[in-house]
Amino acid sequence: MSVLIVGSTALDSIKTPKAENPRLLGGSASHASVAASFFAPVKLVGVVGEDFPKKYLQLYKKHKINLDGLQILPGKTFHWSGEYEVNMNNRRTLATELGVFETFNPVLPKSYQDSPFVLLANIAPALQSHVLTQMRRPKFVVADTMDLWLNIALPDLLKLLKRVDGFVLNDSEAKQLTKEDNLMVALKKIHKLGPKYVIIKKGEHGAILSSPKGMFVSPAYPLPRVVDPTGAGDSFVGGMMGYLSTANGSIDDNLRRAMVYGSVVASFCCEGFGLNFTNKITRPAIEARFKELEKLTRF
Amino acid sequence: MSVLIVGSTALDSIKTPKAENPRLLGGSASHASVAASFFAPVKLVGVVGEDFPKKYLQLYKKHKINLDGLQILPGKTFHWSGEYEVNMNNRRTLATELGVFETFNPVLPKSYQDSPFVLLANIAPALQSHVLTQMRRPKFVVADTMDLWLNIALPDLLKLLKRVDGFVLNDSEAKQLTKEDNLMVALKKIHKLGPKYVIIKKGEHGAILSSPKGMFVSPAYPLPRVVDPTGAGDSFVGGMMGYLSTANGSIDDNLRRAMVYGSVVASFCCEGFGLNFTNKITRPAIEARFKELEKLTRF
Repeated sequence: MSVLIVGSTALDSIKTPKAENPRLLGGSASHASVAASFFAPVKLVGVVGEDFPKKYLQLYKKHKINLDGLQILPGKTFHWSGEYEVNMNNRRTLATELGVFETFNPVLPKSYQDSPFVLLANIAPALQSHVLTQMRRPKFVVADTMDLWLNIALPDLLKLLKRVDGFVLNDSEAKQLTKEDNLMVALKKIHKLGPKYVIIKKGEHGAILSSPKGMFVSPAYPLPRVVDPTGAGDSFVGGMMGYLSTANGSIDDNLRRAMVYGSVVASFCCEGFGLNFTNKITRPAIEARFKELEKLTRF
Repeated sequence: MSVLIVGSTALDSIKTPKAENPRLLGGSASHASVAASFFAPVKLVGVVGEDFPKKYLQLYKKHKINLDGLQILPGKTFHWSGEYEVNMNNRRTLATELGVFETFNPVLPKSYQDSPFVLLANIAPALQSHVLTQMRRPKFVVADTMDLWLNIALPDLLKLLKRVDGFVLNDSEAKQLTKEDNLMVALKKIHKLGPKYVIIKKGEHGAILSSPKGMFVSPAYPLPRVVDPTGAGDSFVGGMMGYLSTANGSIDDNLRRAMVYGSVVASFCCEGFGLNFTNKITRPAIEARFKELEKLTRF
């Protein structure tokens, strides 16, 4: 089955202690869509400007991502630039130019409206809601977010949370949202906001799922070298939703394995700038790392 | 088989945002010995002053800990006092009074020298070495440490590392010791210092083992409430060595399960001040939580 993914489609200029890379393909929808494409057909919803490089459209097409929902508008593509500190854990935003995103009004093509799996990747929660409203009875809807929306669009986010099945956020966002330092307690509080499935991402420490069938402590793939973690969280949810949409059985049966597949794609993402490394991987490489994670965690 | 454990035997005064507890039973050897005692007979090596409360000797005895190697000397018991911040992750030392520890010279009773399993719990590395020298061909020797020894006794620690099978330290200590921010790279560097088995503790994020048979990502038991994390790391290595010493088969066959048992005892430790909670648990409670961790991590 197919996955509809809405989110940001951007150009990222990323500085790390070792290198500087201007105008890479980035954005939550780009990372999530490529990650999901290794498992399932993807329908992308987004907007770019007329300056959007053709090679990036070709990259989407190489991964058979349906672009009927990608608007190309007069103006500039959303541009983010940021810098990572030595340990790659802290990053700061140097500049954000919204460009065509400022007036983005996602309108779903008819062929998109029946997608059974919907990933509302990180983007303003009002836009996430607007896309969801255009869907016909999707089977499973997951939203991701970021601290920015907790700060400037919390009422919108809280409205959205009542309408989704799953919600994904990182540990510091979970603490901020619930004003609670203990993640077990935070999970309970987030369930009360609506979602049946809550996933807290912990970066290099993996992720935790809280669901009707109990909790799952998901591992991260240990990497000896992190080149650029931008998009790792988006790759995680993208890979997860891609796998989920093609697996037989119930969501509860498959979500744990889906999270581990998400972790695997996220690990590849960290090994190159932007999508440079993820772009080159294959399904067998994903399967090999999945098996490694099975071995790494068995006791 | 029995485990010999040397380390500090102390009185801990612990302040948290919610409570203050003076003169609890503490110290690395106390925590590790009680943790190991749920699995195996323990032989304790340590020193206390004449002010050491009788009830704490009784606590050791309740757990059938052999005290032939516990010296009771004129003077005061080692006393540590510390304070935790709101999130329980950061602590600061308020006072350290070495007391009888200042001149501690551990002399092993004859009956101790044949112990096949040796845990050199956190204490000055010169003392750890001195105990190891008195052992006859132990089967498996593990050392723990803390940042203090990296700062003031690094040459002693490096000498010790050439003589042990396993080395346990936490993530920030691993980074400090190797001047390396990536834990996978740090693990490799630590192997070069001697130990075949290196375990990096990551607190609430679990632990990582690097061994001749590969890596293991060990989970932590998720707790909805942390009362006092003091001694959790000592409980982890104590539980691990206790289980290892009684399990059939090779170290490589058993070390992963041993680490998970260590995690379980450490989780109980965090649920009360000092040894208050650990003191009350039973082997069936440990087994139940071990099974829960199996379920929490299966995919």
